[in-house]
Amino acid sequence: MSFKHKHILGIEQMTREDIQLILDTADSFKEINSREIKKVPTLRGKTIINAFFEASTRTRLSFEIAGKRLSADTVNISGSTSSVVKGETLEDTAKNIEAMAPDIIVIRHGHSGAPHYLADRVGCSVVNAGDGAHEHPSQALLDLMTMREHKGSIEGLEVAIVGDITHSRVVRSNIYALSRMGAKVRLCGPGTMLPIGIQQLGNVEVFTDMGEAIKDADVVMMLRIQMERQSNIMLPSLREYSRFYGLNPNNLKLAKPDAIVMHP
Amino acid sequence: MSFKHKHILGIEQMTREDIQLILDTADSFKEINSREIKKVPTLRGKTIINAFFEASTRTRLSFEIAGKRLSADTVNISGSTSSVVKGETLEDTAKNIEAMAPDIIVIRHGHSGAPHYLADRVGCSVVNAGDGAHEHPSQALLDLMTMREHKGSIEGLEVAIVGDITHSRVVRSNIYALSRMGAKVRLCGPGTMLPIGIQQLGNVEVFTDMGEAIKDADVVMMLRIQMERQSNIMLPSLREYSRFYGLNPNNLKLAKPDAIVMHP
Amino acid sequence: MSFKHKHILGIEQMTREDIQLILDTADSFKEINSREIKKVPTLRGKTIINAFFEASTRTRLSFEIAGKRLSADTVNISGSTSSVVKGETLEDTAKNIEAMAPDIIVIRHGHSGAPHYLADRVGCSVVNAGDGAHEHPSQALLDLMTMREHKGSIEGLEVAIVGDITHSRVVRSNIYALSRMGAKVRLCGPGTMLPIGIQQLGNVEVFTDMGEAIKDADVVMMLRIQMERQSNIMLPSLREYSRFYGLNPNNLKLAKPDAIVMHP
Repeated sequence: MSFKHKHILGIEQMTREDIQLILDTADSFKEINSREIKKVPTLRGKTIINAFFEASTRTRLSFEIAGKRLSADTVNISGSTSSVVKGETLEDTAKNIEAMAPDIIVIRHGHSGAPHYLADRVGCSVVNAGDGAHEHPSQALLDLMTMREHKGSIEGLEVAIVGDITHSRVVRSNIYALSRMGAKVRLCGPGTMLPIGIQQLGNVEVFTDMGEAIKDADVVMMLRIQMERQSNIMLPSLREYSRFYGLNPNNLKLAKPDAIVMHP
Repeated sequence: MSFKHKHILGIEQMTREDIQLILDTADSFKEINSREIKKVPTLRGKTIINAFFEASTRTRLSFEIAGKRLSADTVNISGSTSSVVKGETLEDTAKNIEAMAPDIIVIRHGHSGAPHYLADRVGCSVVNAGDGAHEHPSQALLDLMTMREHKGSIEGLEVAIVGDITHSRVVRSNIYALSRMGAKVRLCGPGTMLPIGIQQLGNVEVFTDMGEAIKDADVVMMLRIQMERQSNIMLPSLREYSRFYGLNPNNLKLAKPDAIVMHP
Repeated sequence: MSFKHKHILGIEQMTREDIQLILDTADSFKEINSREIKKVPTLRGKTIINAFFEASTRTRLSFEIAGKRLSADTVNISGSTSSVVKGETLEDTAKNIEAMAPDIIVIRHGHSGAPHYLADRVGCSVVNAGDGAHEHPSQALLDLMTMREHKGSIEGLEVAIVGDITHSRVVRSNIYALSRMGAKVRLCGPGTMLPIGIQQLGNVEVFTDMGEAIKDADVVMMLRIQMERQSNIMLPSLREYSRFYGLNPNNLKLAKPDAIVMHP
């Protein structure tokens, strides 16, 4: 079986079989990363452009190292050095990149939908490495990989995600991915951080009480408060937030005894 | 026949045969970029330093991808991360770079003549990727390549270039290149954007009326107003500029029916 | 004989035999840099992360080119693009980097001890490329290499180092390295730039008079005034500093006739 999509724009477009295939392939590549010679010729002679229009160490490094270990040629664009200062639009950038005949563009962008916009305008494959508050598929796939390694299977897991749901692209991707794989997602946060209608994205239940949310959970995922994405203050004080939505030895006892705690 | 120059500092130093050789070589490399495995061993074991002291996405990416597809090792220096903050001069930087025994330095710099200064001080080849308002040879060679693909030959073409002639390094390189290859260059813009004596650079005629400039032209090249290079305002208003020097369906009719429009 | 250390955190931890081994190995690699094909397969399939949290052209380029010529895959992190803007600590960064299974991390950091902190938290080798005002081992090894090439041997050399001793990490590394190799180090600068107790680091004598310091010296090393590291002004005026601690044809005569002048 082989992957049927040209792009990876989000988990929303993926079936259960797509996700399964990626996780199984990742398992076999994991072994390569523990070898003495961490290199395979899979993408030899291919060019990958990592276009990161938002600051990122971890994700950019992951994609760059992955590309190099697959023997691809990788080049980076970052927000600060890009031609954005000359007033170039994403459309111009897309055309310019297209002229260099890359095989894959990995894009992180502050605007939701930027990877989709790009995919409509270039001939190569586009991989979304995080777009606005929309999706972050590679992070969600990594989270599922971690859950599967600790729990054996995703099917039937109760996964509590606590924090700023509104601004988290990882949550959206995780909701799609976990729902497709048969897990149940419990979202928890103060009302201002819970977008209306988010239940409709998948197998989701919404809580404002943290105790209820993590009761008997297999996985407790604690989100970072994304201060840099807050356009207006959504919480009265960090101390109050931490008292109601912080994880501590007391409320962690409510989860299953073998629950794992994750932090993307 | 092989290229006789050690450096590529500008088109000014090139003969018609030099330009012909580069265009013909580029033709054969173009095919490589459409292959599955876009890689040839031409520069294996060579080190290319891409030193971009001015912001650029397109040109830096082009040189970096070209280097990697030729199997060279490429490393980048950019203005922001360079030791310029420690008060290092271009001469110091040149000596430091020289000590690493690179084979080629590709340099973009805000000061006209910086690549020539560097070429006098290092043992390796220097390629000018744009210096101040002086030359941008690779862009001009690319422009000629495009014209040749669309028109069959450069010889005898009437090429109108419209806009801010004063601040454009691409225009200077294009004037040299087009004149050597037997084309005629018509420069057009408001008086403040037309440097006195520019006719002497090649086979050039100067216009302030756009209609006259593009009449029966084979190629119409529209320059960007380089806002970031304007030290004082050279035009009364963008709206007025656009009315007199903008390209539109009406004045485009004045060019030859099969004219191509270019925008560097 | 092979190198016994997992990390290179400083010269302080190295024996005379360690330093000798590195210099001899460097000699044989020097020849490779003069070949047509400057590439050996020593580190093929290995991943090197160059993490430069302080601006640097020279050192970062050196490590990146060295890595590529040894056939390693190299990736860069710099201060400006790193996740420091998201409030990530060095500990978080260490864990994230560790997850990518690199083989070597080369780190430059503004805080003394940062490489040691990292080495305690990752499984791979850590190379210190300069930490605060603490050590800069690769620079000192390069300095010894240069001295050995010009003087035949380090043993018995009289090495005068003049300038801002307090803020120089290169001096600390050079004191350790030169002392282990049997050279004598004379430190010279105004009292405010000479840290109390620095004699205890090695075979060191301290001078405030430049004439005495460079008398019969084999090597005179002039330090840069590190303006960017001065938290408060340590000298009354640059002119006065230059009069007392500048090198000129007159005081240079005091050194041995075949003395070499160095500037890191």
